[in-house]
Amino acid sequence: MIDFVEGTLSYLDSEYIVIETGGIGYRLFCPNPYQFVRYEGNKTKLFTHHHVREDAILLYGFATRDERDLFRKLLDVSGIGPKGGLAILAAATPEQLVMAVQQENVTYLTKFPGIGKKTAQRIILDLKDKLVGYTPSAILTVAAGDLTAGEQAVSALNEALDALTALGYSDGELQKIRNTLSEKSKEGDGVEKLIKQGLALLMRG
Amino acid sequence: MIDFVEGTLSYLDSEYIVIETGGIGYRLFCPNPYQFVRYEGNKTKLFTHHHVREDAILLYGFATRDERDLFRKLLDVSGIGPKGGLAILAAATPEQLVMAVQQENVTYLTKFPGIGKKTAQRIILDLKDKLVGYTPSAILTVAAGDLTAGEQAVSALNEALDALTALGYSDGELQKIRNTLSEKSKEGDGVEKLIKQGLALLMRG
Amino acid sequence: MIDFVEGTLSYLDSEYIVIETGGIGYRLFCPNPYQFVRYEGNKTKLFTHHHVREDAILLYGFATRDERDLFRKLLDVSGIGPKGGLAILAAATPEQLVMAVQQENVTYLTKFPGIGKKTAQRIILDLKDKLVGYTPSAILTVAAGDLTAGEQAVSALNEALDALTALGYSDGELQKIRNTLSEKSKEGDGVEKLIKQGLALLMRG
Amino acid sequence: MIDFVEGTLSYLDSEYIVIETGGIGYRLFCPNPYQFVRYEGNKTKLFTHHHVREDAILLYGFATRDERDLFRKLLDVSGIGPKGGLAILAAATPEQLVMAVQQENVTYLTKFPGIGKKTAQRIILDLKDKLVGYTPSAILTVAAGDLTAGEQAVSALNEALDALTALGYSDGELQKIRNTLSEKSKEGDGVEKLIKQGLALLMRG
Repeated sequence: MIDFVEGTLSYLDSEYIVIETGGIGYRLFCPNPYQFVRYEGNKTKLFTHHHVREDAILLYGFATRDERDLFRKLLDVSGIGPKGGLAILAAATPEQLVMAVQQENVTYLTKFPGIGKKTAQRIILDLKDKLVGYTPSAILTVAAGDLTAGEQAVSALNEALDALTALGYSDGELQKIRNTLSEKSKEGDGVEKLIKQGLALLMRG
Repeated sequence: MIDFVEGTLSYLDSEYIVIETGGIGYRLFCPNPYQFVRYEGNKTKLFTHHHVREDAILLYGFATRDERDLFRKLLDVSGIGPKGGLAILAAATPEQLVMAVQQENVTYLTKFPGIGKKTAQRIILDLKDKLVGYTPSAILTVAAGDLTAGEQAVSALNEALDALTALGYSDGELQKIRNTLSEKSKEGDGVEKLIKQGLALLMRG
Repeated sequence: MIDFVEGTLSYLDSEYIVIETGGIGYRLFCPNPYQFVRYEGNKTKLFTHHHVREDAILLYGFATRDERDLFRKLLDVSGIGPKGGLAILAAATPEQLVMAVQQENVTYLTKFPGIGKKTAQRIILDLKDKLVGYTPSAILTVAAGDLTAGEQAVSALNEALDALTALGYSDGELQKIRNTLSEKSKEGDGVEKLIKQGLALLMRG
Repeated sequence: MIDFVEGTLSYLDSEYIVIETGGIGYRLFCPNPYQFVRYEGNKTKLFTHHHVREDAILLYGFATRDERDLFRKLLDVSGIGPKGGLAILAAATPEQLVMAVQQENVTYLTKFPGIGKKTAQRIILDLKDKLVGYTPSAILTVAAGDLTAGEQAVSALNEALDALTALGYSDGELQKIRNTLSEKSKEGDGVEKLIKQGLALLMRG
């Protein structure tokens, strides 16, 4: 439910930081709390993973959406819990981790605390496909204006197909309407319009 | 617990949007997030379904109360979960969905992703009665002033009977006091007064 | 966790009202939502029972702490859930309900929707002792200044003994220190001081 | 998730207090609510333990982080629940409790309500190691400036080793890099830098 917390960093110790907003101090467990020591007493914003169990409601905080999304991907690997995920992201940057997975570097991955050979292999097996073409958005957030018209059309088309996939349409169903949507995107239609046209095409199916 | 979230739309992707208020970014899964792209960086208000499971607390966001209430009705149909409900409401307007159910249009309903013939029939079976006389309040919110005195009396009477039904009184019990309340409503008594009179009559029962 | 919600009453229907504060609309199920119709668009404050289940987090709202506390007492009676509690408090004022229990008026209690003879008897059995000397604080909140010195001493003594009971000390343990505390209260010691003295006496025990 | 609540103390009774912030009244169960009576109507800040069960979400409030952390340590002792923890912290200051555990004073501990000999022994068994060198930070928060350079280096080194332990590195792994980090800390490197160097050393491992 909670995607980020923005407020005053009011406390920090070896496992978590506390951000205050509206009179409430929110506790955020972080890979390396001390990376935020320079914000103590000042305003800061962390992206959160809202973790709910029968006996706890916890927030895990990250400096970027990419780092938070990588943490979520690590949690999907069986054998890795929040503590393991934090330890990995404390010891490696998103880029180092993605590279180790793409290069299937088991030795590197077993250097993380609590990660044996089996779990390292499972990280590679589970995440390799999910990280294909994964380039942290720090590189990606090329100002839209810098893209050529063609690149903008492709990006809009991909975002629209992502949205339709998220709604549950299969690759097969989307394959049937891809060409039509591609034409529309080249005519300059934005993501919202492409999605509406896609849904209409699929409903006529 | 949370009925709506109002604040600045600060992030949007293929599955959800994030609305910030009071320093907290609330993540709302929506049928079609890109429908809100024009509000990015601006104030917006979505009506929410607050979904609680053992391992998650999630918010689903909708542009209108009707759409949110239809989503809740879809969740009551066995075999339809939040993802299915979002996919249906992404592809059809509330009016289209209500019409398909009232006309028992199985073919149309099976065009939604993940909805086979059986689930389509179950949607019709479970929702047909609940949607009788269902007119999205966009049409209904006729300014009270436009209703004739008689129509106002009927509307107040129905609202009062709704409230008493919600408290658990059976149709049979309400039938006994309906005429008396109907007289009172014609004399111009408002909903609050009708409910009090109804409770008093029922307690004398 | 949430004891009350104060903000603008922004929506009302037959089962609940919505109070907005800080951009969040909180949904409160109430005995009779229409009793608040005159606050629509204005500021209001309801005392809440924060109800948590595996699949839901709900707020029940009441005009006074007494009504909310009576609701909690009704929930302790086996066979009465939130819906039953709301229906009872919609049809009877706290005073009427307390009187019916103290007078063991089964006939009156069975007039509530869903309350048969057995549940009515169980309400009397479970609540009679808990409601002894129960006078809704509307009568009780006599300005402290109006109490004689003796009455203030007794009230402070009782509040201190309540607090020590809440901490888990048995009646037997409290009986041993009652006289000493009573003397202290006559000397004008306030509740906080009496509790500290009581704890010290008990630790010496 | 909630580390503290800061706002206006708006209600107090024998078991809990209510702090209002942003229109929401937060209910905090406390060891001795009346210790806060002088803040009634004024601003106050309590450190909270956010307790989540299948059927409840509760906040327990404490005047200091130490008291809250001692409460958490007591909850780890089997046989002691929140009510027992509150009763102990109502009757003893953190210093008295720590001393009783360090001196293995079973007789003193059995004076707390609901604590028999067995539970008293278990408190000693479970907490003795955890409280070694435990000095409530009221004494500890010596202004950093008052520490000699050597003491600052040791404190930074310990905080860094704490953080690495929290990430899951074993004592054995930390032992290998301790000397190198110790040298760095004498050269004046702060906690954040020591942690980064430690992680780098461990990844080279």
